[in-house]
Amino acid sequence: MYDFAADSADCARSVEAGLSERLTVGGLSGPGPSAERLVAAMRHGSLEGGKRLRPLLVRQAAAIFSVPKQASLPAGLAVEMVHCYSLIHDDLPAMDDDDLRRGRPTVHKAFDDATAILAGDALLTQAFAVLSDPTCHPDPEVRVRLVAELAAGSGAGGMVGGQMRDIEGEKGGFTEDEIVTVHDMKTGALIRASVRMGAILGGADLRALSALTYYAEAAGRAFQLADDILDVTASPETMGKATGKDEVAGKQTIVARLGVDGARKMLDGIVNEAISALRTFGPKADGLRATARYFAAREK
Amino acid sequence: MYDFAADSADCARSVEAGLSERLTVGGLSGPGPSAERLVAAMRHGSLEGGKRLRPLLVRQAAAIFSVPKQASLPAGLAVEMVHCYSLIHDDLPAMDDDDLRRGRPTVHKAFDDATAILAGDALLTQAFAVLSDPTCHPDPEVRVRLVAELAAGSGAGGMVGGQMRDIEGEKGGFTEDEIVTVHDMKTGALIRASVRMGAILGGADLRALSALTYYAEAAGRAFQLADDILDVTASPETMGKATGKDEVAGKQTIVARLGVDGARKMLDGIVNEAISALRTFGPKADGLRATARYFAAREK
Repeated sequence: MYDFAADSADCARSVEAGLSERLTVGGLSGPGPSAERLVAAMRHGSLEGGKRLRPLLVRQAAAIFSVPKQASLPAGLAVEMVHCYSLIHDDLPAMDDDDLRRGRPTVHKAFDDATAILAGDALLTQAFAVLSDPTCHPDPEVRVRLVAELAAGSGAGGMVGGQMRDIEGEKGGFTEDEIVTVHDMKTGALIRASVRMGAILGGADLRALSALTYYAEAAGRAFQLADDILDVTASPETMGKATGKDEVAGKQTIVARLGVDGARKMLDGIVNEAISALRTFGPKADGLRATARYFAAREK
Repeated sequence: MYDFAADSADCARSVEAGLSERLTVGGLSGPGPSAERLVAAMRHGSLEGGKRLRPLLVRQAAAIFSVPKQASLPAGLAVEMVHCYSLIHDDLPAMDDDDLRRGRPTVHKAFDDATAILAGDALLTQAFAVLSDPTCHPDPEVRVRLVAELAAGSGAGGMVGGQMRDIEGEKGGFTEDEIVTVHDMKTGALIRASVRMGAILGGADLRALSALTYYAEAAGRAFQLADDILDVTASPETMGKATGKDEVAGKQTIVARLGVDGARKMLDGIVNEAISALRTFGPKADGLRATARYFAAREK
């Protein structure tokens, strides 16, 4: 019987320990020693917090193919570094201008804007250093496929492209289809990459990879929709960040169109769709099933 | 007889064409189509300009091992994308706050700060997408080594770490050794990566890679020292960007310590050192020799 609470807590602990061990002055990729201030900012922006859902997805997808937890950790750390870098840059005054993240000062508040920009750049770069290192996986073909997958999830045709579209969308005028595209890219692409990276670590064949991609795309939509619902229903104290921001920003979310009840109904449908894509995998996919359900039920 | 002017012009044309062909809404890595505004900013920050010296170094190092020009181009494009992203982020108001680059408005001036941050992020990510794609090199082991090399050159222990140290150094108080470390990381690390990537494409053995690394480290120092000399001696019109900035910023450059004549003497010595590292390679290394000489002689 899969225990979501136990596995996600165990994964979060491993990610925290792995990031803390790797993000040190001497531990970062390059011919020289990193600057202490840069490393401190990278640590501030990535340690102590976060649900580490993306590394959990890597681990759960890899578990379908019996990949041990420790063997999927480096890929999970790489995805989490990309996620954390995106938050650091998103929080900048030129972007969302947020002072708080997980209840603590954002990186540019705790340091300064220049340091936050560089810390984000360095985390993004380090993610690819982690994936390309032989400690990530013994087979260079697997490693280079992980690199390609993470680059696809986080680049101009993925997360960053979605962020750009989201900023443009704040001016309003997006159709519901366009909103879904923004969500798919901004949040979905990295969730998709996480699941696929787990599958690649497990040596999934094309058919399994395609089923898992379908799962991941639905799960990504569920995650984003749940986020939009929480933005309306949760308090800033619960979330550890400002809420009601979408309304203030005039963002055209699905919740604004369908109302909270309509959005919740839609969310349940998407979660069922995600879970149905896993039917061929049997109980080894219980982790991914539990995470899809968690996306719909989470309260922060 | 190696013709530096012809080879560097040919390389610059190939890089321009290669970037223009790849930086399109449909051509970027990811599950979705990129945002038009993002692609426009990426193009603004990377097309029409620059000497494309890093791709030239990739090509010249690869030429030692008889790698055809076209075969070294994707790796060259990846390095150039990283170089261009670093300029876009460097120019931001939070960093150097430059309005002009190569005589044109910087990306945040032509677009806005948020778009410039995202365009930089997307270029950095795309560089790794290019390297991990099978069109870069048929052997996955070569591709993943290129990824590791570029991540090392551009990350916290390389270029970005150097930028952080450079910002801290503007407050003054660095010794000459510390200045050299900043130069080595900020500019040298990516030059080092370029040369080593060419060597990796060529299947260089450890001894050849080590000689080329020595060359690259000296060439990088020559490049940065030449840059610092030009900051004192050249006009903004010649450079297409503001000059005399190091003095205004109170930057502790070697030129400030040794004077222009002393720095020029030091530069000649470093170039000779770089060239002496190439002695085992014969005429196939004439390209790299010419580039080292060019670094010392360039007038912009």
